Amino acid sequence: MNIDAIEAAAGRLSGRARRTPMLSSPFLDEIAGRRVLVKAECLQHTGSFKYRGGWSAVSALPDDTKGVIAFSSGNHAQGVALAARQRGLPAVIVMPTDAPALKRANTAAYGAEVILYDRATEDRDAIGERLAAERGLALIRPFDDANVIAGQGTCGLEIAKQAAELGVTDGTVLTCCGGGGLTSGIALALEARAPGLRVRPVEPEDSDDVRRSLEAGEILRNAVQSRSICDAIVTPSAGKLTFPILKRLCGPGLVVSDEDCLKAMALAFLRLKVVIEPGGAAALAAALFHGEALEDGAVVCTASGGNVDPAVFRRALDSLAA
Amino acid sequence: MNIDAIEAAAGRLSGRARRTPMLSSPFLDEIAGRRVLVKAECLQHTGSFKYRGGWSAVSALPDDTKGVIAFSSGNHAQGVALAARQRGLPAVIVMPTDAPALKRANTAAYGAEVILYDRATEDRDAIGERLAAERGLALIRPFDDANVIAGQGTCGLEIAKQAAELGVTDGTVLTCCGGGGLTSGIALALEARAPGLRVRPVEPEDSDDVRRSLEAGEILRNAVQSRSICDAIVTPSAGKLTFPILKRLCGPGLVVSDEDCLKAMALAFLRLKVVIEPGGAAALAAALFHGEALEDGAVVCTASGGNVDPAVFRRALDSLAA
Repeated sequence: MNIDAIEAAAGRLSGRARRTPMLSSPFLDEIAGRRVLVKAECLQHTGSFKYRGGWSAVSALPDDTKGVIAFSSGNHAQGVALAARQRGLPAVIVMPTDAPALKRANTAAYGAEVILYDRATEDRDAIGERLAAERGLALIRPFDDANVIAGQGTCGLEIAKQAAELGVTDGTVLTCCGGGGLTSGIALALEARAPGLRVRPVEPEDSDDVRRSLEAGEILRNAVQSRSICDAIVTPSAGKLTFPILKRLCGPGLVVSDEDCLKAMALAFLRLKVVIEPGGAAALAAALFHGEALEDGAVVCTASGGNVDPAVFRRALDSLAA
Repeated sequence: MNIDAIEAAAGRLSGRARRTPMLSSPFLDEIAGRRVLVKAECLQHTGSFKYRGGWSAVSALPDDTKGVIAFSSGNHAQGVALAARQRGLPAVIVMPTDAPALKRANTAAYGAEVILYDRATEDRDAIGERLAAERGLALIRPFDDANVIAGQGTCGLEIAKQAAELGVTDGTVLTCCGGGGLTSGIALALEARAPGLRVRPVEPEDSDDVRRSLEAGEILRNAVQSRSICDAIVTPSAGKLTFPILKRLCGPGLVVSDEDCLKAMALAFLRLKVVIEPGGAAALAAALFHGEALEDGAVVCTASGGNVDPAVFRRALDSLAA
């Protein structure tokens, strides 16, 4: 995997993916004690960066593809469902029973067949691979797929350009990190286009496999089922394709609490006027509330998704009064 | 006033104002029964398009200017306060006592001196002009100022370009309309750059002076003090500079209820991932819920601001359950 694959994905995504804005607020800079730029991928089609990888992968499938299948807590689901519809292919999406209602409803609304599984007792990889084989569908993995990583990397191309336009060529890029598709894609793009920007993954406290894996130098899994509200970035472990990239280019990792994420969502509402979901707020939460763990200098945060149920958003607004 | 003034303002705003994104969602298109594009000016600096006019006017002041004064329910206030700070000038902002708390706090946080007045019993124009004379400050009117109109018109330049990129060169542009600064600026820009797009102002039901004025062919005032939650677009009447432009290029006007605006805010939260304030949701509300009053074809809505207090945003979220 290298920058050429990302540039090729950028070509396929041209005229399809949105170039999402890089936002900022003097009020957030004051809280963080440093310059904070927010790459608002919540404004991407389907409400998260996952459309980039979805279309990157679906558009690269051979012409005789019968359909696609994906497993996802909901953002990859929507990205693949929309991409499949745009390509005129049927899509089957395997989702956990506890996925946010909005994500399930949207995935179905994009025309996909949704199949539910129990995160605690069933293995989504096994279900996905079995259904792919049975029905002859192309499996689009959520992060361990070269075309998906390349698609997410197009977000990194934009970060490099937009940060430079704002005078930021050195500093830290914080990513909301699950299996490492976005993180590794951005890191590859920045290695080539903005080598002064270093990527550090941010995870929920009880789902910090990537932080621990980077320390150990090998892929570790999360021992327990995460109870975090950050569903978008709760993943058993990094992938065989993503981890070597993370190990070479990223880290050290950071962790944030659910409360940190709710507060960051509230500040994004108040100061940036964007809606971020808990898992999409992890990077901003680290920038705002864990600055002591960062080197000096500007920080770019990916606000990676905005698919949040109203009840959870209310909890975020509650944190403003507290 | 013509396109040259708007192009000149665009030059002054280059590198300062954000080129805000044009958003859309298949779910909104389905509700509206037509293609809906949303110009997300809530993502502009200070959370509304008013920064455009603010910097356009402040940057055009002579070098010996001692300071600026403005009156505003809060968005013009913030736009002028930030622009004055960027130019290194003191700012006095006259705001109504019932302005949203967030808008008052932000205006002060941008460094302005905030002076409150009672909307029911005091005349903000008179207060502004008196203070301007007493303190030797340059008065920046919220809409009846050529440089302000030209600044807001830069939003129209972007609409023309972004709509064309999305294949929309014919259709309706709905604006959230108070005194007509944004509406007239956009209309002038589109007259020159996208003549197939016609501007129609949208107002709250009990503050529809522009709709009635366009029908009558002369400036009418609102007889009663509006009770609408759309504070950003509740204005006594259009201006001497804005109305002739509105009369020549815009209309007929539309009206929306507060409930329409709350529902549009909720759908923007759910489908676009942006935070819109009530007055900034009027245009989207008209597109979604009053399509029968529109000609066939695509519609572009300005989402003109996002400075909403959390309590009002909760009311919007409540409308999703209803």
